[in-house]
Amino acid sequence: MSVLFFHVMRYKQTDPDNPNNDRFILYKGHALPSSATWIEVGNISRFDLLSRRKIELDLEDHPTLSRLPFLDVQPTKWLGQGLGAACGMAYTGKYFDKASYRVFCLVGDGECSEGSVWEALAFASHYNLDNLVAIFDVNRLGHSGTLPLEHCIDIYQKRCEVFGWNTFTVDGRDVEALCQVFWQATQVKNKPTAIVAKTFKGRGIPNIEDAESWHGKPMPKERADAIIKLIESQIQTNRNVEPKLPVEDVPHINISHIEMTSPPSYNIGDRVATRKACGLALAKIGHINDRVIVLDSDTKNYTFSEIFKKEHPERFIECFIAEQNMVSVALGCSTYGRTIAFASTFAAFLTRAFDQIRMGAISESNINLVGSHCGLSIGENSLSQMALEDLAMFRAIPNCTIFYPSDAISTEHAVFLAANTKGMCYIRTTRPETDVIYTQQEHFKIGQAKVVRYSVKDQVTVIGAGVTLHEALAAAEELSNQGIFIRVIDLFTIKPLDATTIIASAKSTGGHIITVEDHHPEGGIGEAVCAAVSMEPGIQVCQMAVLGVPRSGRSSELLDMFGISAKHIIMAVKCILMN
Amino acid sequence: MSVLFFHVMRYKQTDPDNPNNDRFILYKGHALPSSATWIEVGNISRFDLLSRRKIELDLEDHPTLSRLPFLDVQPTKWLGQGLGAACGMAYTGKYFDKASYRVFCLVGDGECSEGSVWEALAFASHYNLDNLVAIFDVNRLGHSGTLPLEHCIDIYQKRCEVFGWNTFTVDGRDVEALCQVFWQATQVKNKPTAIVAKTFKGRGIPNIEDAESWHGKPMPKERADAIIKLIESQIQTNRNVEPKLPVEDVPHINISHIEMTSPPSYNIGDRVATRKACGLALAKIGHINDRVIVLDSDTKNYTFSEIFKKEHPERFIECFIAEQNMVSVALGCSTYGRTIAFASTFAAFLTRAFDQIRMGAISESNINLVGSHCGLSIGENSLSQMALEDLAMFRAIPNCTIFYPSDAISTEHAVFLAANTKGMCYIRTTRPETDVIYTQQEHFKIGQAKVVRYSVKDQVTVIGAGVTLHEALAAAEELSNQGIFIRVIDLFTIKPLDATTIIASAKSTGGHIITVEDHHPEGGIGEAVCAAVSMEPGIQVCQMAVLGVPRSGRSSELLDMFGISAKHIIMAVKCILMN
Repeated sequence: MSVLFFHVMRYKQTDPDNPNNDRFILYKGHALPSSATWIEVGNISRFDLLSRRKIELDLEDHPTLSRLPFLDVQPTKWLGQGLGAACGMAYTGKYFDKASYRVFCLVGDGECSEGSVWEALAFASHYNLDNLVAIFDVNRLGHSGTLPLEHCIDIYQKRCEVFGWNTFTVDGRDVEALCQVFWQATQVKNKPTAIVAKTFKGRGIPNIEDAESWHGKPMPKERADAIIKLIESQIQTNRNVEPKLPVEDVPHINISHIEMTSPPSYNIGDRVATRKACGLALAKIGHINDRVIVLDSDTKNYTFSEIFKKEHPERFIECFIAEQNMVSVALGCSTYGRTIAFASTFAAFLTRAFDQIRMGAISESNINLVGSHCGLSIGENSLSQMALEDLAMFRAIPNCTIFYPSDAISTEHAVFLAANTKGMCYIRTTRPETDVIYTQQEHFKIGQAKVVRYSVKDQVTVIGAGVTLHEALAAAEELSNQGIFIRVIDLFTIKPLDATTIIASAKSTGGHIITVEDHHPEGGIGEAVCAAVSMEPGIQVCQMAVLGVPRSGRSSELLDMFGISAKHIIMAVKCILMN
Repeated sequence: MSVLFFHVMRYKQTDPDNPNNDRFILYKGHALPSSATWIEVGNISRFDLLSRRKIELDLEDHPTLSRLPFLDVQPTKWLGQGLGAACGMAYTGKYFDKASYRVFCLVGDGECSEGSVWEALAFASHYNLDNLVAIFDVNRLGHSGTLPLEHCIDIYQKRCEVFGWNTFTVDGRDVEALCQVFWQATQVKNKPTAIVAKTFKGRGIPNIEDAESWHGKPMPKERADAIIKLIESQIQTNRNVEPKLPVEDVPHINISHIEMTSPPSYNIGDRVATRKACGLALAKIGHINDRVIVLDSDTKNYTFSEIFKKEHPERFIECFIAEQNMVSVALGCSTYGRTIAFASTFAAFLTRAFDQIRMGAISESNINLVGSHCGLSIGENSLSQMALEDLAMFRAIPNCTIFYPSDAISTEHAVFLAANTKGMCYIRTTRPETDVIYTQQEHFKIGQAKVVRYSVKDQVTVIGAGVTLHEALAAAEELSNQGIFIRVIDLFTIKPLDATTIIASAKSTGGHIITVEDHHPEGGIGEAVCAAVSMEPGIQVCQMAVLGVPRSGRSSELLDMFGISAKHIIMAVKCILMN
């Protein structure tokens, strides 16, 4: 850490947010307190370090970004996630910023068991990220015992090499050797560099060095005093060291206030899949702001992100089938406000990256995720590809904005709103074509539902989204022929939920709400609505959702078979009105 | 496929469930229809194959187990998940069954970008699974374009080798060469074997071979007819081939009706963390049934699965920090009913395996997952380790049984009930110690909540679970001193939810329910309760849950700071009664 911070890295000590600074990603968050380096370079006092884990202080066991703005440290992800983020930063530095800053990432040996590390290693070499250096801290000890490869740094080296990295092995305490390999790393073109460092936990401390069972344990006071004395006796110089200054060649950019320069070009009645509208909207916004980038994991011909790729090939990142790494790379690309990143794949496959999504939100990342092929309406595709739990996943993410557009017009607005919204956004899109129901002039706001069918005679409020909104509209049409009137609401955003519109509508339709969704009942739209009205007297909610494990088939047949089609809505409305 | 099924593998064609059969894992599920092998060996007719994707038939694009019981094919997982399951089967064959059956897994090159493949590769070599053979089908084409390594089979080979596998490269259409390497694989001791096969999509078909853009597309009728004619002209023999029979050396076992031979040994008022009670219960059940196994991902000293390891070292599998692979291995271990598998780690880290969990449930796997350190009550640990979305995740899994025990007695019952319950079970445990509140004679049932505090004067029903149940009990005690009486319910299982008890209790306490949970509001206990009472008139639910992103601190301080402590429950009760 001292070699990195006082010899290798270039940054402005007093300006942690300077985008020209070299990046450092602390991967194994629990290494933070062990490193007194921070005291020397940042604004943490010795007192803070001693008080870690107390609630009133900012120095947590595993640091988060907003509470530790010093230097260019990124928030710790959880284990196995930092290298992917580092890849995103390095990709941005090399291909988007075309700037001199370099990216350093500290990787623990324990977390090398996480497959996401190998996804990131493959990504970095495939894209020739020679501005990236990963330091593998091989101390052979995990949380609960020894690790599979122990101190076999040659195996780490070989694995990194066959994953395409320029690799060195080094004694992690040999300052001269470290200086040398860090310098050599700067000389290598088109390859990332791995430094496999053999280290010992508690090195130099009698009876502690290389011993098990010290993970996460405080040292007893009397032993600590003796150890501090021992270490102090070994300090040879006490001179101030100044980090090198960065090269200031990062371009000035603007990623705010991206306006829709022309209204959406669809007409009412056009049939367009929202997944396609999303791809078209991404391509459009890419022309308006040149820092919009799109990532995909080998599904671009299904999510239609290939439209963006065709029009902006230099800003499209193919991540192959590695969703965890795709989310981490997106997160890395978006740090320092360098890009507006959209990462798309099938919504079902985003479950693969739940931990990355969770940690991204905790780290206050500004990324946008697009999940296509939601629900069983995907039809003939496999049920393994039907996202029926993605809303539950994203709703549980703090501060995540969830768009679930029902037509092409609202999809385009969702893309623009997501681009302009800080924090994590999720856009859920549908495979089959659906009717355009909004005019080109319709205005959309986050947290504002649309009442899409209304009469003063309405007796039930039906809430749909995506494909089920169209089923609700079909049901409303059929029911009106029978003299039964229902109100239909398009939520547009599932989170935040427009409770005001829902409650007002319910009150004027006899307290009757039906929710119908292409998702499992748990954690979905129905439960969100139930929770929103739970303190309101006189409102009852009937939930229609996909129960159990579905199967392949035609989209319309599946909607029917699993009880979320117009026919079932009509039955539910009649059932409510009969009671 | 033909070499494997008609030359290499040993199985009873008429008895697909025979545990002596060799196992075959179809990893890339979409390869199924392309392989006419199934027609020859199984009970699928040619008609079925032609009708795939139609709703009334069982041959889906990606097969699931219960609908395709032929032979020993396991259900397709989604990409990147099969090799982990294969590892579980091979581990079970070698170490638990000590039997002759071998395990074959077909891996696509596209899915090799998934880190979980590398987790599995590392696992298999670490545990010397020489009864495992993985065939890498390297056809260089992905869903949407060429793959990063294209046809560089030497790189695949080197990567497999440095991950500790005995590796061959081969022309995937060279029958003689395939026969030879499969035979060589049987001669290798203590190492799994990888066969890297260079293949071409549509090989031998003019203008189709090795061409892009044919993934998932049907061939036009007229071209198909010509191709079939071409292939038929190349068939040289039409003789019947019989697969080899398996060696019948799998032991007879019993994994049903595991009874608690002695009641739990805790006494009311004992203070025991449910995570520890869980570890003790696992060790206990391990003595009653010798097919109970436990897996952990380097957290055994935190989840207390180390207690099981100490008493049953031969049945504990250390999976290191690779949660995705741990879940897949557990799934593999449980196939054919060979083991009762419990896999434990921090609940937060199970988010890492959401896709594996999701696909496990779709595949009707019989596995039990234990998530410790739930919620912010973990206190001084990092917020990245606080599971505040695990209930949302598991509730959205179809047919998953969710236990959330509140004391040591109910935890022990949860472990025994989970072991005896088919399908996926999840047990959520708590880090801090909590009081034992049940007697040793208390009886527990899935879907049956406990009314733990009751009087005829109760004015509000408070529903807690885990740590919040104890907060609710403390609130009830304090309130009763002030002449206010509340009913307190311990849900025990969150799914299925005991709606009957909840509704009955709410009706006799003025329709007032308060839910209080150590979880985010979305998808948690509060929403489950809201949904359960949503059609009942006159019931209002006040949800208390963790809002926003928490932080590190002392457990009790955090419960207070985030509004789920006894103090807040008291305020909420008073607020309800004032209105």
